[in-house]
Amino acid sequence: MEKTPHVVVLGGGFAGLELCKALRDRPVQITLIDRQNHHLFQPLLYQVASAGLAAAEIAHPIRSVFKKQQNVSVVMDEVSGVDLAEQTVSTTGGREFQYDYLAIGLGVKTGYFGNDHWAEFAPGLKSLKDARLIRRNLLLAYEKAEHCEDEAERKKLMTSVVVGGGPTGVELAGAFAEIARDVLKNDFRKIDTTEAKVYLVEAAPRLLTMYEDDLSDYTRKKLTDIGVDVKVDTMVKDIREGVVDLGDEVIESANIVWAAGVEAPAITKELGVEIDRGGRIIVDTDLSVSGHKNVFAMGDIAHCIDQAGVRVPGLSPAAMQMGRHIAKVIGDEVLGIKLGQGYPVRKQFRYFDKGSMATIGRSAAVATSKGLKFTGFIAWLMWLFIHVLFLIGFRNRLAVMLQWFFAYVRTQRGSRIITWG
Amino acid sequence: MEKTPHVVVLGGGFAGLELCKALRDRPVQITLIDRQNHHLFQPLLYQVASAGLAAAEIAHPIRSVFKKQQNVSVVMDEVSGVDLAEQTVSTTGGREFQYDYLAIGLGVKTGYFGNDHWAEFAPGLKSLKDARLIRRNLLLAYEKAEHCEDEAERKKLMTSVVVGGGPTGVELAGAFAEIARDVLKNDFRKIDTTEAKVYLVEAAPRLLTMYEDDLSDYTRKKLTDIGVDVKVDTMVKDIREGVVDLGDEVIESANIVWAAGVEAPAITKELGVEIDRGGRIIVDTDLSVSGHKNVFAMGDIAHCIDQAGVRVPGLSPAAMQMGRHIAKVIGDEVLGIKLGQGYPVRKQFRYFDKGSMATIGRSAAVATSKGLKFTGFIAWLMWLFIHVLFLIGFRNRLAVMLQWFFAYVRTQRGSRIITWG
Repeated sequence: MEKTPHVVVLGGGFAGLELCKALRDRPVQITLIDRQNHHLFQPLLYQVASAGLAAAEIAHPIRSVFKKQQNVSVVMDEVSGVDLAEQTVSTTGGREFQYDYLAIGLGVKTGYFGNDHWAEFAPGLKSLKDARLIRRNLLLAYEKAEHCEDEAERKKLMTSVVVGGGPTGVELAGAFAEIARDVLKNDFRKIDTTEAKVYLVEAAPRLLTMYEDDLSDYTRKKLTDIGVDVKVDTMVKDIREGVVDLGDEVIESANIVWAAGVEAPAITKELGVEIDRGGRIIVDTDLSVSGHKNVFAMGDIAHCIDQAGVRVPGLSPAAMQMGRHIAKVIGDEVLGIKLGQGYPVRKQFRYFDKGSMATIGRSAAVATSKGLKFTGFIAWLMWLFIHVLFLIGFRNRLAVMLQWFFAYVRTQRGSRIITWG
Repeated sequence: MEKTPHVVVLGGGFAGLELCKALRDRPVQITLIDRQNHHLFQPLLYQVASAGLAAAEIAHPIRSVFKKQQNVSVVMDEVSGVDLAEQTVSTTGGREFQYDYLAIGLGVKTGYFGNDHWAEFAPGLKSLKDARLIRRNLLLAYEKAEHCEDEAERKKLMTSVVVGGGPTGVELAGAFAEIARDVLKNDFRKIDTTEAKVYLVEAAPRLLTMYEDDLSDYTRKKLTDIGVDVKVDTMVKDIREGVVDLGDEVIESANIVWAAGVEAPAITKELGVEIDRGGRIIVDTDLSVSGHKNVFAMGDIAHCIDQAGVRVPGLSPAAMQMGRHIAKVIGDEVLGIKLGQGYPVRKQFRYFDKGSMATIGRSAAVATSKGLKFTGFIAWLMWLFIHVLFLIGFRNRLAVMLQWFFAYVRTQRGSRIITWG
């Protein structure tokens, strides 16, 4: 009897979870390794950073996802090395795993284009820890401003700068502006929070460059309406403590967030496989890594041109599709071998673009789907519906709905607490 | 024209909030100082520590409580000194406040009876930070146990010890036992979490000594039923890293919690007023501090024998009553002076005992009220109703209800995430 093939999955993100779930009924043993004990619903991370949701509402324990799926073992540990020749994965916890199939879905981290020293002064937004840090910076700045006698210092405390005009940047800037204008309006006695400044800085000539011009224009107009100072065509020259240097303008700010770039974790450079400039693993159209038919990359860490020649975007639906595709390839193969039918011809991955969206403050959004474009309240309702629908766990869905309902009707925020540790 | 009297309130706990609210319509200026930006619903803190609730669900921003009450200014800062002669309060943030009336409601902290070095190995449960630390210790221990080859080490990782058989200790021990037996039951592949051990150690001959014997007996029986090893008449000799030394028995445990004592913060010793052995400020029956008619202490930091000769207990209803009493005294006085009627005779505080309760796991509790005693499911329903009722903020109430509803019907936990910072 053949031994059961061992599938090692790195990362419990959208791709990793879908891959494991889709192998539910296949004769494989799966080990899912993640350094956190929870899956993070990253599209809503900006809500934690802007005090709209509690961390627990967008995080779900990975173990409980696979409570009933006996062929999955969850390991909370950090991957330290992958040896493609020996077919082993090692961890910082000192464990080693021998794999028959490997799927790498470790995601990406904040990237500073070679200016890593900016990280200290302008955190990115990729983890719950990042989100809590940004929330703390934001809320503490207002606390300090309330008792600040120096006008320049007070202005700095009441200024936020978001670098990067992609979806995360747009969503964060919108949320920061709303907090100042609505949520905190009557909370303070000395400062007028509606005088707070929010800058959104983007190097390209327009926001949300993945969309067509009119959606970018709409987004810029909406953000401007709720008080965001949008600066396009603007390069960041330097970031220092409390300072964003734009060359011809220097903005002092107590709350600087970097949403301008991501890069793959360093481990991809050590694999000895082809990677792109951002360190992403370049995969074939079956999502396997060139020269290693049993090794796959998926989600944001994969650089993939699909069967139709489309560059697959770094979005959660794409990651989920990739995870399911890899499960299909592995599943077909192990079944084929088990039934003595040999290796089947591998299916090629084709990205199915359901559309994408970004929200702009409390009741506006932009969305595209199948050539259609949506803006305003209807797009915001679509966004709301889709995001709540995809949140893992019914309880989380209800809790988030509740928070949003109250946030909407009462211009309040559910998680406006400052915590350390 | 007289200047408006300035009331400085130290601490945004139950006493401080009630005091400020009750002075809503009085001609005073109030400054409320707290080192946190949120009020904490401390009776439910054990639920955060045991992964039942998210931190944000039991915390509420103090500013938003007083959004509409214009005579309250909220200051987020830590009190560093009080000068009763100069009538000033200074803070670590370098501010100084001159008061006409001062109300001290700074609460108590975990106390180790002179063994402060135990704190490192056995955290107490007084803040959200404590609660997150305990949650992390608990959940990480199971993660490590799943991959531990050494049997003794694995046993240690799957053992929790709670020191102190008061309400917090009873509630924590019950929750730890439930997590092991129900919540995590199917999450792991190698370990059987139902084999986890939970010890509850109490120096007195029985648990919950504030109640009569039969309730203590009931509590002990219920805890034993859900798998807690209750050790009464048992003194802790020493606590080291991962070890609780009971003299004739040494328990190795990865999750040790100290719930055996509290003491007043050090600042009470510097006031130059009478304090008790635990550092609590001894107050007169009008709740003022002897020799300082304009200085009051309230809540857990006050040592108070009320008008009827009853020692007021350290419970939230008592703290709220004290806060309202002080508001009445101050309010009457400033009105009397303003109307030219001089100083009225001060009312004496009388504690109104509505009863108290402690929960034991998922559907049992003990409660006493007006000489009546309740146990079991009915007591648990009372506990549920009263605690949800008193949670500040309607949204929090609904969110907590929801979490509990799901926890009850699905033996799940809402906040089982491990986070750092």
